[in-house]
This record gives sequence, structure tokens and C-alpha cells, in this order.
Amino acid sequence: MSETQHLTTGSKKPLFPDDGVLKLYSMRFCPYAHRVHLVLDAKNVPYHSIFINLREKPEWFPQVSSTSKVPALELVKEPGHPVLIESLIICDFLDEKYPEVPLYPKDPLKKAQEKILIERFGQFITAFYRLVLHDNPDQLSDTDHYAGLDIYEEELKQRGTQFFGGSNPGMLDYMIWPWCERFASLKFTIGDNFELNPDRFATLLKWRDLMLQDRAVKCFYLDGQTHAKYMSSRRAGNADYNML
Amino acid sequence: MSETQHLTTGSKKPLFPDDGVLKLYSMRFCPYAHRVHLVLDAKNVPYHSIFINLREKPEWFPQVSSTSKVPALELVKEPGHPVLIESLIICDFLDEKYPEVPLYPKDPLKKAQEKILIERFGQFITAFYRLVLHDNPDQLSDTDHYAGLDIYEEELKQRGTQFFGGSNPGMLDYMIWPWCERFASLKFTIGDNFELNPDRFATLLKWRDLMLQDRAVKCFYLDGQTHAKYMSSRRAGNADYNML
Repeated sequence: MSETQHLTTGSKKPLFPDDGVLKLYSMRFCPYAHRVHLVLDAKNVPYHSIFINLREKPEWFPQVSSTSKVPALELVKEPGHPVLIESLIICDFLDEKYPEVPLYPKDPLKKAQEKILIERFGQFITAFYRLVLHDNPDQLSDTDHYAGLDIYEEELKQRGTQFFGGSNPGMLDYMIWPWCERFASLKFTIGDNFELNPDRFATLLKWRDLMLQDRAVKCFYLDGQTHAKYMSSRRAGNADYNML
Repeated sequence: MSETQHLTTGSKKPLFPDDGVLKLYSMRFCPYAHRVHLVLDAKNVPYHSIFINLREKPEWFPQVSSTSKVPALELVKEPGHPVLIESLIICDFLDEKYPEVPLYPKDPLKKAQEKILIERFGQFITAFYRLVLHDNPDQLSDTDHYAGLDIYEEELKQRGTQFFGGSNPGMLDYMIWPWCERFASLKFTIGDNFELNPDRFATLLKWRDLMLQDRAVKCFYLDGQTHAKYMSSRRAGNADYNML
């Protein structure tokens, strides 16, 4: 969709043709920005990607994103070019604005239940970063790092569908995917035993293989080794944004 | 709407007539639960309040609320009596389910912008609890505790309306109100100088006076002294849930 060079302090704001195409300010390895890429790609909404060096941000970036964070989505067709922030708010907006490929259930109750499952995934995200950022992985064996995943295994088994969204990925699938994709980096950073137990997570592992075949997932996919390389550079205090 | 006795360990799950009326599990002083009371009252949706002692929860409560937290809303008319959690998810659901008194703008972009302002209020919530829970208020004078409020002052001034929602309170008004109401407790707990500067926050102070006249706000309102009394009991490690 665009080159992956990250703009940094001193760089000019990129100029685009007056084509009305959405501008997504992102960072190639940010899982929250990843969510927005997935939703835009799933909905076939064209967009320009502008990647930002988050350690040395361009001087103009705070004028674009009110919190200086990515993801930020600039709506160039709207008067004043408003910018939306916060991954879940942006994705909910996209689902309302581009309803042709709906990602949430229509029923308000079912939609709220999907949002609760998206929110509760935060427990696994916390456990994931505890693993990634831990100084001594040997000390980690006593904790059950995957406790946050059990409800998703159980939920998908109960639904009996290929994806949480049914026969195609829905909002819940895409909102949790960025960390599921990154899970494959752990065996490269902290050791071979950081794989999901195939008995305990049989349904989720089948789901993961199906997600890897999804067109939107493929659009922005990076393998475990590449995620591991980025995470190691970040851990070393020298995040290598432009490594691709 | 209901008595304010909080159910505790050993208490039985209350029985209600099979009246199809929503059940809201709440805590009388919880600002997140307060959000849901406001939305239900604003929309004139009848509900039963069930108050929970959060330090000594009834044994049956984790079966109701999957995270054992309040607010939790039980939809007794739906098959299986599903329970929703998370204040913002519940309020968004109520706005979709009961659209007669709409609280969000219809336009997806305007709605997303309201959600961003609700999200960013978290900065003030953090600053508020830093004040409330600080051991030595004398040390607090160097910090600008109200920095998180400037964008709301500016936003409401620009809108030129009585409320963020226009001529009536909308979702943004109600979602930030619980902490605005509790702000009036600070002069009782940490000192007289914790009032908002009338020059800096002229628009928000006018808004506060108007909110105090709103019917939904009045339904669940407690004055600053009462909030202060509860907060002092909580600080002392002995939260007095049943003080009303």
C-alpha cells in the first residue's frame, strides 16, 4: 500500500494528490495500528499509509494526532480534515461508515458481547508484554501466561464457526489478531517452549491457521522471526522501525 | 429506584418478579456504575438496582458478572439472561437498544469524535485520583491538576451550546459527569483551594450548574460532602457502602 520508511524529526509532512483517500498515520510494528490496517483492508477501503518514527517524531505530528499517538486516521474528504485516534474508536467508526462489509453483528446485544470480548483480551495483552519484556525468561515457568486465552478457546468452540465472526473474520477476530500474530515471535526471543499447547488450544490453533489465509491478514502480515527481530531492537532501546 | 443497602458475603441473590425489567448491579459510590444509572434515567428505561459490597462480594456475584465488577447489566428479557459489563460498552448498547432519547450524534464521524473526548477524559480521572489518594496534599500545589480539563472548556466554548450534546446532555456530558460531581468533594477532603478557577473554566462552571438541574443527574445525585465522607472511609480502608 505504501513504503515502510518511518518519518522522523526534521522530515517534511508528505504531500498527497487531492484524491480524497484516507490517510492512516501508523507504525509498521504497532499492534494497535495493525488493527486499523486490518479493518481497512477487510473492507477494501483505499488509504495512504504514513509511518511515523515514534521515538523521534516529526515536528508536525502533534498537529495531526492530538495525543501524538498512532494510529491516527485523517479524513481528507471531510471539512477541516478531522483526525480520529484510538484503535477501537477508529475501527468502530469504519464499521459504521463503510457498512458494505459489516464486521460487527447487527443486533445491539451481540455487538456489545463482541466488544466485551475485545475488551477482555487486554488481560492476554498484559501477559504477553510481561513475557516479551521480562529480563529472565527462566523465571517465567511457574506462571500460566495463557490464562487470558481460555475464554476465547471456549467461546469459539461453543460458536462452532470457523471464525468468531462466523464464516468470515469479524471485528473480534481482527481486534485480537495483532497479538496472536506476534505470539509466533516468542519462540525466537524467549525459547521453544513458548508455543500454545495443542490440546488446550485446539480450536484457537485451527483458527490461527485459517486467519493466516485471510486476505486482509495477508496484506499486513509479518512472520514470527521478523516480529522477534523488531522486538529485540526495541528491548535494546533502539527500535529499528525501518528494518523491512 | 431501590434501597441502597449493599449485598455482601453470605447474602442471597435477590428475587424479583418476572417483570422483564433490567437489573443493574451497581455500587452506590462507583463513578463507572454512575454512568449507567445516568443513561438509564436519561432514557426513562426502568431498572432494578442491586448494590454490591465490593470488598466482601456475595458468593453468587461472579456467576453474574464475568469479571466480578460493577456495573453489570442483566438483560432478563433475553434468552439465558445475558449480562453486559464495562460502563462504556453498556452505555453504547443502551443508546442503540433504546434510540427514542438518542445520546450520540447520528453521524458516525461526530459520534467517533464524542468517543475520543470520552476516552481522553481518562487523563483527568487519573489526576483526580492522584489528588484524592495523595498522603500529603500540601505537596500538591506545584502540579496543574486541571490540565486534563482545558480541552473540554475549549470544546464547549467552541460549540456554543449549553451542553456537549446541544440543548440537552448527550453521551459525553453523562460519561464525564460522575467525576465532575465528585470534584465538589475535594474541598472537604483536601482543602478550600481545590475549586475550579472561574476565569479559566468559565464555560465548564456554567455547564456544571446546568447539569445539576438535569433530571437524570438529579436522580442519582449526591452532594460533595457525602462523596467526601465516602471517600474518607475508603481511604481509611473501611469503605462505608451503606452510609446513606
